[in-house]
Amino acid sequence: MTTHAFDKAIALTRQADGSYLGHTSPAYWNMVGPFGGTTAATVLQAVLHHPDLLGAPLSLTVNYAGALSKGPFQVQLQPVRTNRSTQHWTVGILQNDEQGKPVVTTTATVVTAARRETWSLSDTPMPSVAPPHAVAAVQLDRLVAWFERYELRPVTGAIPQQWDGRGDSSLTQLWMRDALLRPLDFCSLAAMSDVFFPRVWLRRATYVPAGTVSITTYFHASEKELQAAGSGYVLGQARAQEFRNGFFDQSALLWNEAGTLLCTSHQIVYFKE
Amino acid sequence: MTTHAFDKAIALTRQADGSYLGHTSPAYWNMVGPFGGTTAATVLQAVLHHPDLLGAPLSLTVNYAGALSKGPFQVQLQPVRTNRSTQHWTVGILQNDEQGKPVVTTTATVVTAARRETWSLSDTPMPSVAPPHAVAAVQLDRLVAWFERYELRPVTGAIPQQWDGRGDSSLTQLWMRDALLRPLDFCSLAAMSDVFFPRVWLRRATYVPAGTVSITTYFHASEKELQAAGSGYVLGQARAQEFRNGFFDQSALLWNEAGTLLCTSHQIVYFKE
Repeated sequence: MTTHAFDKAIALTRQADGSYLGHTSPAYWNMVGPFGGTTAATVLQAVLHHPDLLGAPLSLTVNYAGALSKGPFQVQLQPVRTNRSTQHWTVGILQNDEQGKPVVTTTATVVTAARRETWSLSDTPMPSVAPPHAVAAVQLDRLVAWFERYELRPVTGAIPQQWDGRGDSSLTQLWMRDALLRPLDFCSLAAMSDVFFPRVWLRRATYVPAGTVSITTYFHASEKELQAAGSGYVLGQARAQEFRNGFFDQSALLWNEAGTLLCTSHQIVYFKE
Repeated sequence: MTTHAFDKAIALTRQADGSYLGHTSPAYWNMVGPFGGTTAATVLQAVLHHPDLLGAPLSLTVNYAGALSKGPFQVQLQPVRTNRSTQHWTVGILQNDEQGKPVVTTTATVVTAARRETWSLSDTPMPSVAPPHAVAAVQLDRLVAWFERYELRPVTGAIPQQWDGRGDSSLTQLWMRDALLRPLDFCSLAAMSDVFFPRVWLRRATYVPAGTVSITTYFHASEKELQAAGSGYVLGQARAQEFRNGFFDQSALLWNEAGTLLCTSHQIVYFKE
């Protein structure tokens, strides 16, 4: 049995000092560094493999301080406080620079929680859209490697076919799953939360350099609910609320095929011009 | 001239080791600790006063690991990476426990940014609502001190008058400003982003214990735009998207009276039952 490319990309080896060693993955390479989704998933993976872990992921914030270079990196993490129902983690990714000096590339915080059944209510029904196989999968020029790792079927708001400055909405709705099927888990959900191309491209139908500065994902689903989704499709919806002086925000929601909201995610993104 | 209670609440003194010393404020006391908004503002205040600061606040994530007790606390912070246009900070608040041992009460990350004028677009117009003086200010039983520090004029979604289990929406829109007028700045905006009472109270018209676990605020306004708002009203809008097994999310937007979106904010909140 071969290991899935996503599991290879987020694979970590525990070191004697309690940190973890990872390695960037060519399969999930973006333009000048790894796909941010795999970086977020790697942060979460370190927490999930830590011997002191209690509970399941509730909140994940990842700040992209600098692009990772191809090669090994180190994940440092600490459970700084454990309460009855929540555990608070600080995480950093470091990589040696050309002089062999460790440099922070990523800062992050994670909250895990022991969840109990309570009154629950979904207040954001999944939009009524065509089913996955009724919409065509994106056939992309192979600009960046990580695009090929996902099967993306946009219902609305696909990457502009023409960069003619005529955009009128920042809304994307798309069905997605791992191109090579893999059962959904917290790490892949963290990565999928970052799958949307920059909203500024869509809103303006104009190509400008852009990159996520910080992403926060709140997990609503339990491990059991994720397992129940299996390797089925996830419906993702993303839109921006404000574009201002070099940065825009993005709010995203991800549901499973059955219409259960799995997570909500927000990010602030740099753009040029 | 007397110092405004908010400035007292977030006042910090730099220590020889580069950390900052603060003190909880009775004026902004909540039920079992300080109002989370002042804690978030205190984190930001430390960054804004740090001698190495470059740029203005872009993103602020604050994780409430444990309630602060009445008394002094220490803010530790570090600019872990400075790029051409962004600076990444890690921040922690610590307080001595009964044995005099420092305990982490708060973890946080902040990104500041040097912003340049670019193409900009507000994609979320301020809702059309009655002006501030056309809606009544909340007259609250003085349950918690910090409520009295704000003038809150709910347009829709006020705290339920009757806890009869008949809620049908999690949407609140309200005009707010400091009860004792104070010009808006990044710190007060960070605090106002947390002014909304728990969405679960509104959605269920049922009182249950609840508290913010993690909040993230993205700042869209510049200092100049905040100054232009002066001590005018801010329109805040908050709603939940999902209530599930002990936690719900909240998405909020804050505009100035002129309709400029100042910030967007998200939080994940614990609730009991």
